[in-house]
Amino acid sequence: MKSEHLKILPWSLEITDMDPDYSSFYESILSQGNGYLGVRGFDPAGVKENSFERSVFLAGFFEYIKPGVTDMVNTPDLFSLRFGIPCQEVSAATTLDMRTGLLTREALWQTERGELFSLISRRMVSMHNKHASALEVEIKPLNGDLHIVLETGLDGDVTNLPISDDQMTENTQCKSLLTPVFCHANQLGGTLVMESTPSKRHVYQAYRVMANLPMATTGVAVDAYTAVRLEGNIPQGDVLVVTKTIATYSYRDPMQDHLAEAIRLAELLAGLGFAGMLNASAQVWCELWESCDIEVDGDPELQGAVRYNIFQLLQNNAADDPYVSIGARGLMHGRYKGNYFWDTEIFMLPFFLYTRPEAAKNLLLYRYHMLPSARDGAKSLGLNGARYPWMSSNTGYEQCETWDTGCCEVHITADVAHVVQEYVRITDDEDFLVHYGTEILVETARYWVSRLTYNEAADCYNLLFVKGPDEYCGVTTNNTYTNYLVRENLLGAIRAVNFVRQRPEDWDVLQAKLQVTAQELEKFEEVAEKLVILYDEDRELLLQDELFERMEPLDISVHKHGAAALYRTIPYDRLQRYKVIKQADLVLLMTLYPERFSTKLKENIWSYYEPLTLHDSSLSFGTHAQLAADLGYVDVAWDYFRKSVFLDLYNIMENTHHEGIHLAALGASWQALVLGMAGLRQGEDGKPKVDPKLPSTIRGLRFSVVTGGRKYDISV
Amino acid sequence: MKSEHLKILPWSLEITDMDPDYSSFYESILSQGNGYLGVRGFDPAGVKENSFERSVFLAGFFEYIKPGVTDMVNTPDLFSLRFGIPCQEVSAATTLDMRTGLLTREALWQTERGELFSLISRRMVSMHNKHASALEVEIKPLNGDLHIVLETGLDGDVTNLPISDDQMTENTQCKSLLTPVFCHANQLGGTLVMESTPSKRHVYQAYRVMANLPMATTGVAVDAYTAVRLEGNIPQGDVLVVTKTIATYSYRDPMQDHLAEAIRLAELLAGLGFAGMLNASAQVWCELWESCDIEVDGDPELQGAVRYNIFQLLQNNAADDPYVSIGARGLMHGRYKGNYFWDTEIFMLPFFLYTRPEAAKNLLLYRYHMLPSARDGAKSLGLNGARYPWMSSNTGYEQCETWDTGCCEVHITADVAHVVQEYVRITDDEDFLVHYGTEILVETARYWVSRLTYNEAADCYNLLFVKGPDEYCGVTTNNTYTNYLVRENLLGAIRAVNFVRQRPEDWDVLQAKLQVTAQELEKFEEVAEKLVILYDEDRELLLQDELFERMEPLDISVHKHGAAALYRTIPYDRLQRYKVIKQADLVLLMTLYPERFSTKLKENIWSYYEPLTLHDSSLSFGTHAQLAADLGYVDVAWDYFRKSVFLDLYNIMENTHHEGIHLAALGASWQALVLGMAGLRQGEDGKPKVDPKLPSTIRGLRFSVVTGGRKYDISV
Repeated sequence: MKSEHLKILPWSLEITDMDPDYSSFYESILSQGNGYLGVRGFDPAGVKENSFERSVFLAGFFEYIKPGVTDMVNTPDLFSLRFGIPCQEVSAATTLDMRTGLLTREALWQTERGELFSLISRRMVSMHNKHASALEVEIKPLNGDLHIVLETGLDGDVTNLPISDDQMTENTQCKSLLTPVFCHANQLGGTLVMESTPSKRHVYQAYRVMANLPMATTGVAVDAYTAVRLEGNIPQGDVLVVTKTIATYSYRDPMQDHLAEAIRLAELLAGLGFAGMLNASAQVWCELWESCDIEVDGDPELQGAVRYNIFQLLQNNAADDPYVSIGARGLMHGRYKGNYFWDTEIFMLPFFLYTRPEAAKNLLLYRYHMLPSARDGAKSLGLNGARYPWMSSNTGYEQCETWDTGCCEVHITADVAHVVQEYVRITDDEDFLVHYGTEILVETARYWVSRLTYNEAADCYNLLFVKGPDEYCGVTTNNTYTNYLVRENLLGAIRAVNFVRQRPEDWDVLQAKLQVTAQELEKFEEVAEKLVILYDEDRELLLQDELFERMEPLDISVHKHGAAALYRTIPYDRLQRYKVIKQADLVLLMTLYPERFSTKLKENIWSYYEPLTLHDSSLSFGTHAQLAADLGYVDVAWDYFRKSVFLDLYNIMENTHHEGIHLAALGASWQALVLGMAGLRQGEDGKPKVDPKLPSTIRGLRFSVVTGGRKYDISV
Repeated sequence: MKSEHLKILPWSLEITDMDPDYSSFYESILSQGNGYLGVRGFDPAGVKENSFERSVFLAGFFEYIKPGVTDMVNTPDLFSLRFGIPCQEVSAATTLDMRTGLLTREALWQTERGELFSLISRRMVSMHNKHASALEVEIKPLNGDLHIVLETGLDGDVTNLPISDDQMTENTQCKSLLTPVFCHANQLGGTLVMESTPSKRHVYQAYRVMANLPMATTGVAVDAYTAVRLEGNIPQGDVLVVTKTIATYSYRDPMQDHLAEAIRLAELLAGLGFAGMLNASAQVWCELWESCDIEVDGDPELQGAVRYNIFQLLQNNAADDPYVSIGARGLMHGRYKGNYFWDTEIFMLPFFLYTRPEAAKNLLLYRYHMLPSARDGAKSLGLNGARYPWMSSNTGYEQCETWDTGCCEVHITADVAHVVQEYVRITDDEDFLVHYGTEILVETARYWVSRLTYNEAADCYNLLFVKGPDEYCGVTTNNTYTNYLVRENLLGAIRAVNFVRQRPEDWDVLQAKLQVTAQELEKFEEVAEKLVILYDEDRELLLQDELFERMEPLDISVHKHGAAALYRTIPYDRLQRYKVIKQADLVLLMTLYPERFSTKLKENIWSYYEPLTLHDSSLSFGTHAQLAADLGYVDVAWDYFRKSVFLDLYNIMENTHHEGIHLAALGASWQALVLGMAGLRQGEDGKPKVDPKLPSTIRGLRFSVVTGGRKYDISV
């Protein structure tokens, strides 16, 4: 499935292909964003087949599609470009520059009458001003003068295709979530205000269009489509340059008059021009790369892939917004209705934690701000404290509608508690622990106490009806990954309370809110102590859950070919009774606490579980690479790492084309490289140290991390 | 919640009430049907608020509401009656005569101008001709001449309200499944043809309207509404009698010209008149009562309730149709989208088996005819043989969309196999076993072999991911009820094959189809032998499943008040971790094999599980009554029996009003009385014998049963 026409260079992707079979794939990997908005990399002048595929998503902009259930709203196509003359593309080459975020498509076009012209389109989503984006088009006649008719503006005729949270069912029914309430155009540009139903949330946009040659221009505004129409001659030898600057605001931006602001900004951007905007944005990219880049010596393609992973993590993160998280497919695809999963906390967040701690903090603040909903979520299930939903959107209420996953895949709550503690450990941000973290830890601990079931006969606490990270486990009992993190959550709550108590003023404020009792803390401790952790003494092995050992063996080599998920050929329900693992489960636990477990245990876990693992989730390869590296299995680690780091670029899961890019795998790749292969750890002196496990083909690695508020440049 | 205004008499129900709070309840219990169609007992002249509540369902008439999922189609309102003058009902009394099926409403009406008139409406659904129904209206002026304007015909403006299979979520979105393709009226009557979308299935109806006094009559046909409008004076002292005869056919009736047939029948019925139609129908009812009645001496109200249970079972059974079964709410409500559950086989079928074996056979033939879909169903889950769906409609494909229930509540397949064997045992219908039963038994046995999971370490077969009859068990392992029936299914398949082999010609035909191998039969035996049946030797107790003993205790007396299901006050998910039982589980198993288990075991099961049972399903009371009677706990049995037999009439579950009548409870009541309290068993001489366990208030019971093709009159 790898495209021969994709070249991965150290700082860019280059594609020289127009094969329609690959167009969705290219659209996915060429996605651009700035954390505020994300655009799939479709060709602005290309044919628009499915209006849900020309997606522009705004972080945190969701709308209800039925009671309680939201979808991420597809907003107008910013880069709309239509020719008013019959013509078609003959060849094209596309370059995504990761240093600046610029996407360039250089194409050869031919009109029906045989006129040839080159069309260079450049587009950008500004990292400097998150509301700004721009398109620049260069048209150059190649065989004589060219009469051109061109429209560019905003196309609000876009739809959503809400995709169920069940991996096996596909929706085919599009929904329009937005309707135009104001659509205007004149010869200079236009404005578009769209409203979502039923919540009446608005997106406000304005654009300006400029041309370097004298053209007849008119405004076109029909329904939800607004554009400037340019008509005129381009003499042979001349080049027409059309620039469109776009400003986007939504109801989520706190201001008085969004539309006026959009108009003002579009004009300001027109003044800067494309080059000025690109320059400002590239400046920010430059700073981002300074803190986030990993230089890899010895393998230019790998270098490019490593950078691509980082590039997309940065593009999908609204670094300064404490009210949104990062969806499983970021802002680049509507899969999973744009929801936030544990993918953020366990797979992506460590990257931000070590490179942009403020961004990591904001991701955690999203969870803090969702505490009221998490409390309601627990209550609605007859439980105490706060329960984070398996799938979370702007509401913070459970978006997953199935019992087995939505009700039983409960580890997300402990995952959140885990990264709260990780954040404090790495950053030393004690204020965060005092003002936000402790409340999360205590409320989630309360949830667990009520969610666990005490067995008097055995004097232990069991976690009944649980689905672990290995989603092929059906619904089981005492998933060890989950139970272990639950225990850490309970103990972490006790530690946090004891810490805040040392700051009496802060404690008084917190205690007024939380009303923690001594009995409660004792209960946390008792439950943590008596919580079942399945361990087989004879085999020196943690057991995945109570049912796993009783499953039927399956010869994976017979059934699994390539990396495509096995649930596409063996029914999902059937897979659940085979002794196979969908994705890293106990292997993941080993990587979360790399210094906690004995090498012997890690080796046993690897040798027992790794051969049973199907890697039917993009979350699996990176984690396996990380543990393999930790164990010194350098070649195995490297194989897994390559599968993770090239996951989207090689379309390894065979779904990047119609699902978008896999944000968790991007983050897992980063962890595999930095925490696994470079062996980054917190030293006893509080400073980072490394313990490299690199193959001989890699001659060096250089990157920076921030811990305890200080930046360290690391060279391996 | 019992209505004071409902009187239950030995042969009728009488209601003297117009309280709107109770109208849905009365509509439910006054439902009429003939197995072909079922009508809720709404007042024909009453206000039409929700078009989905004026339901007329035809057995087996389903339509897709989304890919793969059907709903039972609500067809036009047959009894539509509208006044063309402003008037309203002042008082009303309704009588449902169970001897004839006649529903009579005697009401006093008043016009806006103060004119009083009495309105008697009589309606019937013919047991003699399943396509025939009729309405007769008598209007008598009470204080002077009355100018009347009246319309009566067919109202196709009805909708469906598909209700999810999850007991916790309610749909509020109505759907129109039918659109009119032909709607006509003249002064004599009219015709209406409705078409369903997307399958283009039709319902064809014709009606005739007659009046005894000279009236100006016109036809009215608008959209899906067709009626005859009558206008004229009724002199004081005279009575206007309007009769409407209706003929209904659907795409399911095999004939050339449905509409012509409907017109012909409506006219024929007009010739018979209401009295003639009622007489013919009552004749059939008389025969039905002769074979199905149970006379109870000593308690007239109970006598009426016992008859009501039988009456509704008969009304909802398409006795001569081998392609339909009986929905959980019969033809009387759209709850559960009209689907067929195990309710039919385990709870209703014994009644038919002992009183109308041909009807029981047709219920089993429905399952036989669904074998191709059941094979597909198994295959779609990666399994062999035939898997019956938890919820079944005309397609025979799984209609339940949840994993925990739709995928895991697998006992239905074993339930079907159980009643196949019961049918043969009671009827001696060996031909059925040869031509239908064996194929069901072998194919379902094959399913189980593939559905079970072999555990090599323990050399046993486990049933993983199973939900038992106790639906508060979450998803568990080795539900004993299910495993026991699976074992019987496997052994039954072996016995059936061995039986058919003795008839070589039949065997050749069957074997050509089934290709049973010796290895396969050995496998059935091995699996039956090694299938885990959880038994605690110390306590001499069967255990419900592997998790039940580890659940948290709940003080039921604190939480459960009245009979309303506890999932209305404690979240369903939470209940699943309490050591409580929704409905008879192992208690039910004891009643399925009353002579198999020791009294000691039955007593232990009763004393352990009964106090933990919440009876949050209408399927529970009757079964408990039956086992209590078997154990000689006469008073306890009688208490449970009364809850079951009055379940709908007293609205004990507090949902009869908006869910319709509970068909399984009707059947469970019959079993409790006949198999439990009368103690009916098959004697060693092949003849039925009884062993009564009746309270002193009941002085006698008389009923008939058919076993081995012979009818026996039994008096206790």
